Formats: sequence, structure tokens, C-alpha cells
Amino acid sequence: MEQYKVKDISLAPQGRLQIELAERRMGALLEVRKRFAREKPLAGVTVGMALHVTKETAVLVRTLRSGGAEVAITGCNPLSTQDDVAAALAEEGVAVFAHKGESNEEYYDFLNRVIEFMKVEVRTPSESPPLRGGEQSISSPVPILENRGSSAAAGTRGEARRGGRNLITIDDGGDLVGEIHKKHPEFIANLIGGTEETTTGLIRLRAMERDGALKYPVVAVNDNKTKHLMDNYYGTGQSTLDGITRATNILWAGKTVVVCGYGSCGKGVALRARGMGSNVIVCEVDAFRALQAVMDGFRVMPLAEAATLGDIFITVTGDKHVLRPEHFSKMKSGAILANSGHFDAEIDLKGLREMAKGVRTVRTMLDEYTLPVDSSQSTVHSKSTQTVNREPMTDDRVLYVAGEGRLVNLAAAEGHPSEVMSLSFCGQALACAYLVENLGKLEPKVYVLPSRVDDDIAALQLEAMEVRKDELTEEQRKYLSSWEEGT
Amino acid sequence: MEQYKVKDISLAPQGRLQIELAERRMGALLEVRKRFAREKPLAGVTVGMALHVTKETAVLVRTLRSGGAEVAITGCNPLSTQDDVAAALAEEGVAVFAHKGESNEEYYDFLNRVIEFMKVEVRTPSESPPLRGGEQSISSPVPILENRGSSAAAGTRGEARRGGRNLITIDDGGDLVGEIHKKHPEFIANLIGGTEETTTGLIRLRAMERDGALKYPVVAVNDNKTKHLMDNYYGTGQSTLDGITRATNILWAGKTVVVCGYGSCGKGVALRARGMGSNVIVCEVDAFRALQAVMDGFRVMPLAEAATLGDIFITVTGDKHVLRPEHFSKMKSGAILANSGHFDAEIDLKGLREMAKGVRTVRTMLDEYTLPVDSSQSTVHSKSTQTVNREPMTDDRVLYVAGEGRLVNLAAAEGHPSEVMSLSFCGQALACAYLVENLGKLEPKVYVLPSRVDDDIAALQLEAMEVRKDELTEEQRKYLSSWEEGT
Amino acid sequence: MEQYKVKDISLAPQGRLQIELAERRMGALLEVRKRFAREKPLAGVTVGMALHVTKETAVLVRTLRSGGAEVAITGCNPLSTQDDVAAALAEEGVAVFAHKGESNEEYYDFLNRVIEFMKVEVRTPSESPPLRGGEQSISSPVPILENRGSSAAAGTRGEARRGGRNLITIDDGGDLVGEIHKKHPEFIANLIGGTEETTTGLIRLRAMERDGALKYPVVAVNDNKTKHLMDNYYGTGQSTLDGITRATNILWAGKTVVVCGYGSCGKGVALRARGMGSNVIVCEVDAFRALQAVMDGFRVMPLAEAATLGDIFITVTGDKHVLRPEHFSKMKSGAILANSGHFDAEIDLKGLREMAKGVRTVRTMLDEYTLPVDSSQSTVHSKSTQTVNREPMTDDRVLYVAGEGRLVNLAAAEGHPSEVMSLSFCGQALACAYLVENLGKLEPKVYVLPSRVDDDIAALQLEAMEVRKDELTEEQRKYLSSWEEGT
Amino acid sequence: MEQYKVKDISLAPQGRLQIELAERRMGALLEVRKRFAREKPLAGVTVGMALHVTKETAVLVRTLRSGGAEVAITGCNPLSTQDDVAAALAEEGVAVFAHKGESNEEYYDFLNRVIEFMKVEVRTPSESPPLRGGEQSISSPVPILENRGSSAAAGTRGEARRGGRNLITIDDGGDLVGEIHKKHPEFIANLIGGTEETTTGLIRLRAMERDGALKYPVVAVNDNKTKHLMDNYYGTGQSTLDGITRATNILWAGKTVVVCGYGSCGKGVALRARGMGSNVIVCEVDAFRALQAVMDGFRVMPLAEAATLGDIFITVTGDKHVLRPEHFSKMKSGAILANSGHFDAEIDLKGLREMAKGVRTVRTMLDEYTLPVDSSQSTVHSKSTQTVNREPMTDDRVLYVAGEGRLVNLAAAEGHPSEVMSLSFCGQALACAYLVENLGKLEPKVYVLPSRVDDDIAALQLEAMEVRKDELTEEQRKYLSSWEEGT
Repeated sequence: MEQYKVKDISLAPQGRLQIELAERRMGALLEVRKRFAREKPLAGVTVGMALHVTKETAVLVRTLRSGGAEVAITGCNPLSTQDDVAAALAEEGVAVFAHKGESNEEYYDFLNRVIEFMKVEVRTPSESPPLRGGEQSISSPVPILENRGSSAAAGTRGEARRGGRNLITIDDGGDLVGEIHKKHPEFIANLIGGTEETTTGLIRLRAMERDGALKYPVVAVNDNKTKHLMDNYYGTGQSTLDGITRATNILWAGKTVVVCGYGSCGKGVALRARGMGSNVIVCEVDAFRALQAVMDGFRVMPLAEAATLGDIFITVTGDKHVLRPEHFSKMKSGAILANSGHFDAEIDLKGLREMAKGVRTVRTMLDEYTLPVDSSQSTVHSKSTQTVNREPMTDDRVLYVAGEGRLVNLAAAEGHPSEVMSLSFCGQALACAYLVENLGKLEPKVYVLPSRVDDDIAALQLEAMEVRKDELTEEQRKYLSSWEEGT
Repeated sequence: MEQYKVKDISLAPQGRLQIELAERRMGALLEVRKRFAREKPLAGVTVGMALHVTKETAVLVRTLRSGGAEVAITGCNPLSTQDDVAAALAEEGVAVFAHKGESNEEYYDFLNRVIEFMKVEVRTPSESPPLRGGEQSISSPVPILENRGSSAAAGTRGEARRGGRNLITIDDGGDLVGEIHKKHPEFIANLIGGTEETTTGLIRLRAMERDGALKYPVVAVNDNKTKHLMDNYYGTGQSTLDGITRATNILWAGKTVVVCGYGSCGKGVALRARGMGSNVIVCEVDAFRALQAVMDGFRVMPLAEAATLGDIFITVTGDKHVLRPEHFSKMKSGAILANSGHFDAEIDLKGLREMAKGVRTVRTMLDEYTLPVDSSQSTVHSKSTQTVNREPMTDDRVLYVAGEGRLVNLAAAEGHPSEVMSLSFCGQALACAYLVENLGKLEPKVYVLPSRVDDDIAALQLEAMEVRKDELTEEQRKYLSSWEEGT
Repeated sequence: MEQYKVKDISLAPQGRLQIELAERRMGALLEVRKRFAREKPLAGVTVGMALHVTKETAVLVRTLRSGGAEVAITGCNPLSTQDDVAAALAEEGVAVFAHKGESNEEYYDFLNRVIEFMKVEVRTPSESPPLRGGEQSISSPVPILENRGSSAAAGTRGEARRGGRNLITIDDGGDLVGEIHKKHPEFIANLIGGTEETTTGLIRLRAMERDGALKYPVVAVNDNKTKHLMDNYYGTGQSTLDGITRATNILWAGKTVVVCGYGSCGKGVALRARGMGSNVIVCEVDAFRALQAVMDGFRVMPLAEAATLGDIFITVTGDKHVLRPEHFSKMKSGAILANSGHFDAEIDLKGLREMAKGVRTVRTMLDEYTLPVDSSQSTVHSKSTQTVNREPMTDDRVLYVAGEGRLVNLAAAEGHPSEVMSLSFCGQALACAYLVENLGKLEPKVYVLPSRVDDDIAALQLEAMEVRKDELTEEQRKYLSSWEEGT
Repeated sequence: MEQYKVKDISLAPQGRLQIELAERRMGALLEVRKRFAREKPLAGVTVGMALHVTKETAVLVRTLRSGGAEVAITGCNPLSTQDDVAAALAEEGVAVFAHKGESNEEYYDFLNRVIEFMKVEVRTPSESPPLRGGEQSISSPVPILENRGSSAAAGTRGEARRGGRNLITIDDGGDLVGEIHKKHPEFIANLIGGTEETTTGLIRLRAMERDGALKYPVVAVNDNKTKHLMDNYYGTGQSTLDGITRATNILWAGKTVVVCGYGSCGKGVALRARGMGSNVIVCEVDAFRALQAVMDGFRVMPLAEAATLGDIFITVTGDKHVLRPEHFSKMKSGAILANSGHFDAEIDLKGLREMAKGVRTVRTMLDEYTLPVDSSQSTVHSKSTQTVNREPMTDDRVLYVAGEGRLVNLAAAEGHPSEVMSLSFCGQALACAYLVENLGKLEPKVYVLPSRVDDDIAALQLEAMEVRKDELTEEQRKYLSSWEEGT
């Protein structure tokens, strides 16, 4: 079997430069790598990954390998692979199967190549035989976090691994987990656990758990504070605007931006859009989040109403068909549609295509859909185009879709900046260590890492940024744990 | 026993106007009041309250009484009582014991008067005899929330109330609970539960729970999303600045503001200070919160360093001696110190007084402490005063303390605006109903209300604000609960 | 003639404390005072002032007197006088005629007392005889600013003063100038000039200039960058919100605030309202300013449309009847109306009173107007009150007017903070010196101070704030004045 | 002579798509184009342009040609040309000489080709003979603006044009004007005027005017409110961050950004950096602007101090060697340097190169300079790199320069968005018409357009954005021009 499948292996040197650049901004993850190199917590483990193949992911891959793991990786989105980075990883010996712009068939083929790689690994143990639970106190690979002030010894964890290599999946959106459950059930026994990066993936996994369909434990890395309150918020906020800017070069100041969804991602997008001078409308189905949006100074209304007002629409809901024909038909000519949720289901592109008289790509990652004028009930709003005396623009109403409706920050820009991925990927790396450490103790459920892991990641990041926090005095610590002083 | 103790009963008409004004802005709580009036969930209950006696609290008192409760109330802070409101409540027949500026002795005397009122109530059942668990299905006072879409029947709650009236405490800071536990333990058997409003109180209650010292169940109203993410954040943010402005009339633009603590309150204060044009420094002991502050664009550093930079210092930590002599000695002349945490322990005023050559009150709620010049190691920073050619200012270094170090939003302004208290007090009212509803089921622990209560409050508030949120389509609802669609 | 007319002279000690507090925050003006004390540029000058009698104005009065001037002062608004400060000034020997809440008759009576004071001064020269132009090189009182790096000698200014004392008016809104022109024309010959503080006053003065009606030179202090880009923007922004908060205690977060006028004042108000979490709509008649508002992320629309949307309306236009019955009839019940423009003409209160069924004062500086329900075309918006089950609120639609429609920052709060008035009043003091310095050179026109005066004030303020700016290198200075280097 | 010189004429179709996209967002300029097409105000005029050759500039070129002009164009910066747009213009018959990445020799060669084109035009009148002043009343091409409500007739403008075609230069930075003055003085007689786009160019032109070196009138388009308060502020703010993001993909949240210069451009950059979550320090030589920066909530300090603190440095001063070796030697390893001022003189790259041990390009438009470690006095700050265990990073201190120190928004991104260029280029187009209209009346000075032109542009833009402003009532208009109403 081929060991890798990339667009152009000669891009490797350029890819290495990008990875190096990312490393400079991922100090916390490099610190984890140093621990891993020392403690080898992933010895005997094979990790199969379906993550956006970016320079930051490459730093995670290097970290996992420093910890002793074998790694195979594919992308988790057809448009998010950075081909130079993929080449660099391949050259370093990683089993990488990904290129930007892969077809749906290729996408699933690559997922299965990763799975095959894991299967082979199960059958062909590497020279470093898998540790068993009882042995771990010898090389002490595990207590990654305990060495920061805690003296807790891991002790015996009672149960030996199941033989051969231990397998872990790292997933982003849940396609890898889904594929294994659907097509490779026989293989699940060898999986000691998985991790999931996104809100979207967790919605699926928790639905599986609820239905009794989930067959191995998964750590919800997304639910780390250092992940969803950082990456989703600051990362998605910035990179979503970045993707739309690169796709369209529009001016944000003075635009009406409709943000669909006010979770961590939506909050970040709304904040940054306001930071760029836009007037933001939030559409949300959850009452509390809707209330937060109002209190944060945004207008809140149903999308059916916002559709007539927006210049730019951004979906970040994790749900399906958020923008659909009933909305397209009301939008102003020239409106821009983008998605920053994991799947490309949030904008009903099929519905849009069916309404359109024509579609053309006007820039990289920007498609123009021409709609019949009478598709608009709000003729008032089509006026701006009529001032234009060039024929193709006179009669038509057009909508622009950025990044083909796929997550625009990766399709049209470079995804989240390294700094924020450093935090998320500390979570991924430490979640893998946690799965090994808790081998035999976990049920086929969705787990959240203990908060000390989160705190540890935050502390590493502060250190990497050379920021010093305050410390409690002895008196203060005592006051906080007592309850006898009064007014 | 006197039925009330207020400053001046003739202020009642003015107080009624204030309460009426508050009601106009507390639509969600009025909606709860309507339900309570219909369903009488607090029939047979006596509520003893230690809450800031403000116009908003009066609306809560009216709501509890609409639900059938008898109410006694005292303040929870010597400076926070609005005397006209206290008078209005007294006139309405509430047992109110509070006036602005009460001494420490009066404070505890009043707490005990509330406790005595509750005891009397236990001994002297009112004409409407307490309901017992099994009887509630008749008048169905309980399922406050279930009638919003849920068909869950409350069923029998198994255990009868303990006889006489059922007692509930509503506390803010934990002094009432503390006093009962310390001095009236015999009385605890009659308490079906309590509620707690603040982070500070919960720190104490959870310490009590940990030590096995907590003797009856308490609902952590503070932990409602609709409380700590609303009241603490938007409320404290605005009202803290308001208090300092009224005490000092300083210009916020261009000032360096040091915010100590970056929990919900500190985040709110920092956000609003930036919104007024200040440059904000955050001091925080928690790594993750420190990281959030950095990412939010603030400087983060130890207070020992920030002490030399700040024009205004605001404590919102829930801890003790956050600002202390080691900091006072480094501060610029003219610096302003204010606290917005529950207790006045956050600024070490005793330490400051000991350092001072003199203290005088220069405005309502603004005290000037004159320190010997050599108390400052940072002579560089005392320069601004030297440009002033008036003698009293030439040689001295002064610090200003706003609101006597007590929570400045209540001491120097009017506390949180009605809108935000509406949310918190929906939580209080529904927590009381929850305690009745779950009579006999709860252990002496700290409980958090189920999230449906939070969602219900948020929905009521949106309705009161006439904001419409979006609704899921059937297709979307199904998508969210399925896990089989992929990329 | 009485030398002063204040509410209560015994308030003087309290007033002195306030003035001292202001001085601590007005370092730049204190620096000008030191120069004035040294150089006596206003020897022989009597200044008649109509300014808000606040603690900051008191610091200006002291500064003018340090420079050698005699001063008489009255307020420029019936609600803006701080009575304790007025008492303190009276005690210091200033001819002060003002109290908070003066009637219209008193207002004009007091204006005329200031004018009478000036007249007396003309007839009764003080012991320090007025300098004449040619004499000034002896005591060199004038070149206030030139000693900062410029060696320009003032030389002889050619023309002697007109005999007796030289008179200057300092005005805020133009009422003093207007009164003199209308009723005391004979007196104008003795006036060497005036200064004007506000945009509103300048609109009037420039209209007078255009009509040839202006009879003596006036310096537009308002047009200093250090005035209108500071005081109007940062000062009005903060203090307007402060006034409304004190009058109403509303929560700004989540409110829709309609700002009428987007000049420097309106920009400041809009910025701060957003900074407090409000959603801001701007109404503006000037195309460019409307465009700025859009680009700044605000909604822009005609007031006729905004009237149905706003929770709070703020006028800062300098124009008349901005809010009028056609708007009142569309507003939501509970809407708050406030004015921060100089005159109380911006809200048509007479029109509102005529529409109202009743008016009552519900708090200090907050009047409630009850309108017949059918006065509203937008019944949709009156819903929130219907959730309230208290009778007086069921049927009526109410509007609240803060500060009686007079400038709300002074009526309901304390006006601009000292820091910002320091800048404006450096301009006032230096404008007086400029009028003396240019005696005989100025025509009856509106003048703007040379930009070096502005720069000087800015530098003084930076120094007072201990902020260090950068300096050009020699190479850079040369580069900026050359034009021969290219790409 | 070749009629154009572009990189690849086959890019024309792609370029046309970009231009069309720009046109959709430049409604105001399209409105001017319609007027021009109707009135032909530039008949007989040849325009020589040195502007960034972007899709927006192409829309200006089309507009000028609609007005009757012949056009030749080159870029005004070696890195700012969009090659596809250049191709599209060439194909449309425009004399375009530009490609991205031109050498210094090419740059000046191309400038001279534009000049040659203009000379040929002078000698070879086109078929549509130049109008003379006296003839214009026939086709009435001129009163572009008067037709918006003003009935003022232009009348005869007295003086005939000087024969042959009338020539106009449109310049951005002043290189074209400089080149003509230095090398083609004989040719100046044919120039009826020029326009200048930038602050930088105006610094040079005003120095020329002061020295008597300017030989023909130039309109300072930059000084339009609709230009420098829009393009410089909103445009530079967004596009500068965009350029740096594309060059580096850094996370802005939590970064310390040092903005050098706080004019309109610097204000925009600082605002947007804050809007993205950065902590901003401003360095400024002007006292008033420094004061504004403080009041806006930014830290202000000398660059010598800020150099040790910044993560990202951005120059927008119009001056030379703002960042120089004394600063480089203090910067943290990993710091990013970018310039958004017109010339690449703001960062002393020569100085940096001389300090560096090595330079390499790590990404498109991102160069990494490796400095000897001992070049840094602030060893504290190099710590973050030491946590990294990869050799090339262990010992070195690196600085990154984005966009080769040329204006980063054009070098690394696409320049200002179309919306904002629409405003600037309305100014350019109307300035050309103004020069024709005032033929024979202007001296060789720098002129600013009358404010009615600005107002007209603002109104066109509002219309294009479908924003409605308010209108004065008759009563209000009268009030504003009267001066007799008082308090």
C-alpha cells in the first residue's frame, strides 16, 4: 500500500517552512511535545486522524510522534488541505492521504486508507511492543499532568490492553468515527478511544451515545474551555472574516452582517464583524443565547426577517439548511453567503442552484448565482444594481457564495491561526495521553477532560506568551475555603 | 414585636413610585408574578430574606407574596438600602428591617429580627394552612414551568411537609444562612431550603457543604445562566462604573483602570471600562481567566506591578485583602479605589487607615486618605501633584476610596438596573417554587436549577423585550438528533 | 449692589472641597494658572461670564483672577449651577449670581447683574490701572505661548486700549452676547472681545456675523481641536449617559438608543452608548455625517422611522424641535427622552404637554407624561405594558423626559468631568490673553485661535497626564520638508 | 510605441470579472460615470495616471473615458499592480504600463511612458478636438454638481485653453508630478492641473509650493472629507490588517500592536486592531494626536520604549526611518514589521539588512531576518523561542517583514475595498472636471475642492447604499440661521 497520497511531494520544503512558522506561535504545544519526548506516553499507539491538514495540524502530528505514536492522517474537508504541508508530512514519514479539492469519492477513499493503515498496524506490531496497564509504572509514560505540582501516582490501572497496538482516532466532524462504526465494526475492539474536535462532531456523537450506537469512548476535546472558548471564539471569529475578505475583498465597515447561530463560534464572528465596523444581526433558536445577543447590543430577529436586510450572511450553527430558498428569494442583490460551520449543509446550495438561471465562478472561492428578478419579493432592495449601466447587471439579481459553502475560513483562507490551534491541539495531545492512562476504565461514552487538564493548558499558554498571572496569598487561600467570616 | 424598622415611613409614596418604575422594566418577573397569583405555589410558606432592599427587590417581594408567601426582609449590606423603598414595603405590610447606613450592631440585630419573624411564623400558622406534598395535585400550585410545552406531571412527591409553615431563606452573601447555622440550629428543621444570590455566598456555602456543616438544601441562584451571565456581567459592569462616576465624577476616557478578578463580574467591569475609553489592566489568579483577559485585548500582570500604573482600581474577586498596604504604597497620588465584590474585605481599609496621616470625606461616598509622601517607592508617579501650586496638595500623596470599600454600585449608586434584576429575581422566585415542589427530595447540599428553568426565564425576558428568536424546522430538529449524514 | 446672589453661602466649605478635587484633575489649567500668576496677562481686565457654575468653572475663575482679572459670573442654564461651588466662589470674592433651579426671570436678571458689574467696572477703575498696548513690553504679560520654543517677540501692537478697564465676555450659548447686543449697545465700545464655548452659541454668532449684527470680536473656543474634539466628544459622550443613568437607572445593554445629530457631541454619545451595550440608531441631516455613522456601524434612518424603534432618544443637534409630536405619537410606551444640546428647544416639550393626559415627576429629574393610548399608531409596541397587571399602567402609554429637556448631563449629573474641562478652559483662559494681546487688531468677527495655541494646550495636558510622545529625528524633519526623494 | 505593457494579456477575462465585481460595490462612482457619459466634461482631455492598478482604479479609468478623456496609466508602487486588471484595461484600449513586481528601472521607465503618451497626445490631437473655455456652454459639460438642486449657471469662464489637448495628471504619492517637474519642464505648459491622492504626496507638493517649485495647480483629493476620513480611516484600517493577516496568518487577539502615526490612517489601523482583540500602543510626534490616542484608550509612549513590547509594528506616518536599527535591536524575537504608508522608507530595511546574519523568504510577502542574539539588549524577551527545541530557532532572534516594507495592504492583499475607493475616486473624477471647469483661473498651488463637492459625493454614496438621512424642517432651517431666540 502506498504510504502517502499528496498533490506534489516537491512542495515539501515550502511546507516545512510553514510548519516551522506555526511552531514559533505554538509554544504551549511545543512544551507538551517536550514532555511527550521525555515520557513517551503514546508508545505502542497508532493514531488515525481525520483533521484539516494544515501547518498547525502538522505540529500536532509531530507532537504525537514525539510521544511515541505512529500516525496516519487524512483531511476532514475537501477544501481545507494545505498541499505543501501535506507534502512535508509525507516526507517526514507520516502516512498522509489528502489534497486540496478532493472529490467526494477521494474523500471517502482517503478516510478508508487511514482505517486500513490502522488495521495493518494492529496486525503488525511495531518494534516497541504495546505497554500493558500494569507495566506503566516502570516507564511512567502517563502522568503527564500530575508532575505539575501533584504527587498523585497513577497506580495500577488493573487491566491490560487488548493486544497488538492500541488504536486511537482523532476526528473533526465525526466522519472517521462514523465510517468505522458503519463499515468496520469488527475493528472497534482494538480502539481504546477517540477524540473529537468540533461542536458538530459532538452533536453526532452524543446522538450516537443516546441511541446506544457509540461503541468506544470518545473525548470531547471541543468541550475544553481552552478549546471552545478560545479556538471557536477567537479563532473562528477572526478566520471567518478573513476567509470572506479573501474571497470577496469587501469593506466590512457599514455592512449589515447576519450571523446565524450565537454559540461560541457565532459570538466570535459577531464580535469581530462589529470590530470591523459592521452592523450585526443575530439569528438564534436558543432563548438564552438570543438574550445574550440582545444584551451584547446586537439586533435579534428571525432569519425570515433578516434575509431582506443583510449584506453578508454567515452560518455557524452545526445545523442543516439554515439558509434556504425561502431566504434566498428575499435577499438583496449582491448579498454574500458564507458558512463557517463544519459541514456544507448549512447553506442549501442545491436549493440555490435550482433557483438560479446561471452560476459562474468570479474569483477563487467566489461563485455568483444569478436569480430571476422576480424571485425577489423585495424589489425595493434590488435598486442598487439598477444604477449600474452595464448589461449583465441591469436585470439580474445575484447572490455570491464564498468557499462553495464549505467552512470559509479553511476554504478561502488558512483556517485558524497557529496560536489558537496550539491550545486546541494541546487538548488533542493530552486527550490521547488520557485515553492511554485510563485504558480499561472508560465506557463507550463521550467524556470531557478533567478541568486540571484545561488549567494546565492555559498555564502553558500564558507561559509561552510570557504573561504573568497573580497568585493567592496564604491568607486569601484560607479565606476562600472558610465560611465563618461575615459582613 | 415591631412589624418593621425603617428610616422614615413617610417616604413610602416616593418608594412606591420607584417600585412602579422598576416594574415597568421587569416584565419577565411580572409574568412570573401572574403565574404565582394564579397558582399560589408558595401558599403556607414564610420567606426570610437578606437582600439589598432596593426597588427591584421590592418587586420580588411582591411576587413572592402573590404566590402566597409571608415575607420578612432585611438588607444584606449596611449601605445598600433605599429608604423610600423600605418605607413602601413596610406600608404594604412586609416585615422590613433596614435603613441605609446601619451600624454593624444594627445589621446583625436586623438579621435576627428576620429570623425571629420566621420562628413566630412557625409557631403561629396563618389562616391558610400549609399544603402537604400529597395535596398539591389538587390546587396544582407547582408545575410552574411544565406548562410551557412539557406534559410531565409532578406526581406525588412522597413526603409531607414537616408541619407548621414551611420556611425558606433568600440570602445574598450568606450572612442569613450563617447566622441561622451559628445561632439558631434548633430552627433548621423547619427550613425546607434556601437560595443564594451571589458568587461570594456560594464560595461560603460550598465550603460549608465540603465541611459537612451545611444543614439544609440551598439553591445556587447565582449559577443560573440567566443570573451570573446577565446580572454579574451586564449588571455589575454598568453599575460599578456608575457608582464610581457618582462618587468621583472622573472622566473614564484615557484612564488606566485595574480590574482585579476576571470572573463574570470582572469581565463586565472590564468591558464597560473599555467601552468608556479606559485602558484596562486585569489581575487574576486563575490561569484560564488570565488567558481570556489577554485574548480579550487587555494587559494582564500581577497586581504588584499594576499598582504603579492604575488610576482606578476595582476589586471583584470574592476574596480578601486584594488591595493591601504593599499596593497602596506604590500607587499614584490621586488613585481611586473601589470594590464591587460582596464583602468590604477586598480592600484592606484597616491597613490603609494605619498608613494614613489623615482621612477626610470630600464628597458623598468618597474618602480621601493622605499618605506620607515617603510611603511611595515610585516617586516618579507623584509628579502630577507637584505641578499644583496649592499647599495642601504639594507635599502629600492621596488615595481616594469610593463607597467606603463596600460594593460601590449599591453604596454610591442604585445597584443593578431593574432589567437585569428581573432575570435574577425570576430565578429567586422560581427557586422558591422549586424548593416547595421538591420538598422531601433534597439533601443539605448546594443545588443548581435545571436548565429548563433558565431557558424559561430567558424566554420570558425575550417576550418582555418583544424580541423574536428563530425556531428550528422539523428537518433541522431531526438533523440535530441524527448522526448518519456525513460530508 | 449685592456682590453675590447664591442659594446658601454656608455651602462654601463643601464647594471648596469640590473645587480642590477638580483642580487635582485639571493639571493643564493649573499650569496656565502658574503662567498667568507670573505674567499677569489680564491685569486691568474685567471678565463677565455666563458659564455653567460648576467646580471646573471655578478653577477657570481662579485662573483668570490669577492672571489679574476681575470676574463676575452667572450661570448659562437654569439647572446647571452647583450651589456649593457658587457659595465657595462668592466667599472668595467673586461676583457670582446663580443658583440651581432659577426661574426664567431670575436667569435674565442674573445675566444683567453681570453686565451691570462690568459697567461699574468700566466707570470705576480698580487700583491696578489698565495697561495700554504700548506699555506691555515692560511687564511682558502677553506672550504666553511664545515662550514654548518660539522666540517671536510680540513687539508693539500699535494701538492703545480704549480707556478705563478692558472688558471681555465669556459665553456659553450666546445669551450674554445676545443680551448685550440687544439691551446694552452703548456698552459695546468697552468690550475688547468675547469668547464662546459651544457649537450652539457659534451657530448664533456666525448668523450675527453674516447679518452684520455682531459688534465685537469673539473667539470661537469651541473650534479648538482641544475643545470640540475632546470636550464635545469624550465629555458629552460620558456625561450624557451619566445624566440619563442618574435620572432613570436604566440598563443600557440591549437598549435601542436613537442619537439625533452626529457632530462631535453625537459621535461621542453614540460611541459611549455602544460601549455600554446599546444598539444605536443615528438620525442626521448632513449627508457626510450620515455616511460616517453608517461606516461606524450604526443604523441611519429618518427620525420618523426611528421613533417607533427607540427605547431612549437623545438630541444633540443645536437645532429646534428635533423631537416633536409627530414622533411622540409613534414612540413605545416607556421610552425615555433626553437632550444634551445647549438649549432646551430640541425636544418640543410644549407639544408633548399638549398631547399628554397628565404629567408627574417620578424621580428627581424624571417626568412621566401619560399619553392617551390612541395617540399611538403603533399599537404593537405598547404590548410590554399590558403584561403588567397594575391598573395605572394597563391602559396608558407613558413617555419619560429626563432633566426637563435641558442638557441632561448638567441637569441630572455634574456636567463634564474635570479632566476634559481642563482642556476647554485652557482654551478660554488663553483666548482671553489672546484678545488682550491682539487688542486693536481684531474686527467684529468670529475668530479661531491659531493652531499653536491648540498644540500648546495638548502638550500641557499630556504633561499633566505624564504621557510622553515621540519626537522627530533631524533626518525625519528634513524629509518631511523636502520633496525630492521618490519611490 | 507600444500601447501597453502588461504581464499577460490573456488574463484580461479574469480582470474584467474583477472590474465588474468592483463596479457592483462602487455605486456612487457609477453615478458619476452616468453624468460624465451624459455631459462629457473631459472631452479633449488626456489624463496621465500613476495610481495603483487595481480593479477599483479600472472603474475610475472607465469613468474618465466615459467623460471623454484619453487615459494612460502606470502603477505608483512596484508591488501593487493586479496583473489581470492591467490586462483587461489594455484590452479595452487603455495605455497601461504596469506589472506586479516591477524593478525600480521599470518603475521609472513606465512613469516616462505615461509622460510620453501625454506628449504625443499634445502633438496629435484626437478626432474630438479640445473644447475651449468659451465653447463649453454649448454642450454644458461642466456643472456636474450644480444640477443637484443648484441653478447656478457656470457662464463663460473667460479664457480659452492653451491649444492642443488639455492634460491632467492623477498622482498617488507625487512621483509622476515629481518626474515631470524634474525631467520634462517644457511640457508643463500643457498641463491644466493635477490631482493627488495621498497624504504623503501632499506633504511633498506643499513643500514644493512653499519653495515655489510647483509649476501647475494640483487638487488635493486626499483632503476631501469623503476621502481622508473614509478611505484613509476605514479603508487603510481594514486593508492593513488584511495584508498582514495574509502575509502571516497570525492571530490578532492578545497581540500587542504598535501603531506608528495617529493620523486618519493610524486611527483606522488602531481601531481595527482593537476590533480584532489586540492591545494597541500608539507612537506619535504630534501632541494633539497623542492626546487623542490616550483618550481613545490606547497607550502612548515613545517608540524606543514600545519597541520592546510589540508583537506587530505598523508604520503609517508619511515619514522616513520610523523603525530603525535602534528599535530593531530591542524587539522581541518573532516580531512582525509592516508599513502602510505610501513609501517604503518608513522601515529602514537597509539598516535591518546590515544588522542581519541572514534573510529568507518564508512565505509570499514575508521575509525573515535573523539577527545575532546579542543584538538584543532585552534578553528577557527572547525566552519564548528558547522553549522550542528545534535547532534553527534555538539561538537566533528573528524579525519578520511583511510585504517588503511596501504598503502592505496592496503588496500582500488587494488594497482598499471597492466601496471606499468609490468615494475617493468620485473625488478624483470630479477633481478632473473641476480643473477643466476652472481652466485659466487656478494658480500653481495646492487646492482643496469646495465642500459642496464633498457633500455631493457623500449623498451619492448614501443613495448607492440605500440609506436615507433626515431633512431639516422649514422651522429648523430658519432657527439655525437666526440668532434671536435665547434660553
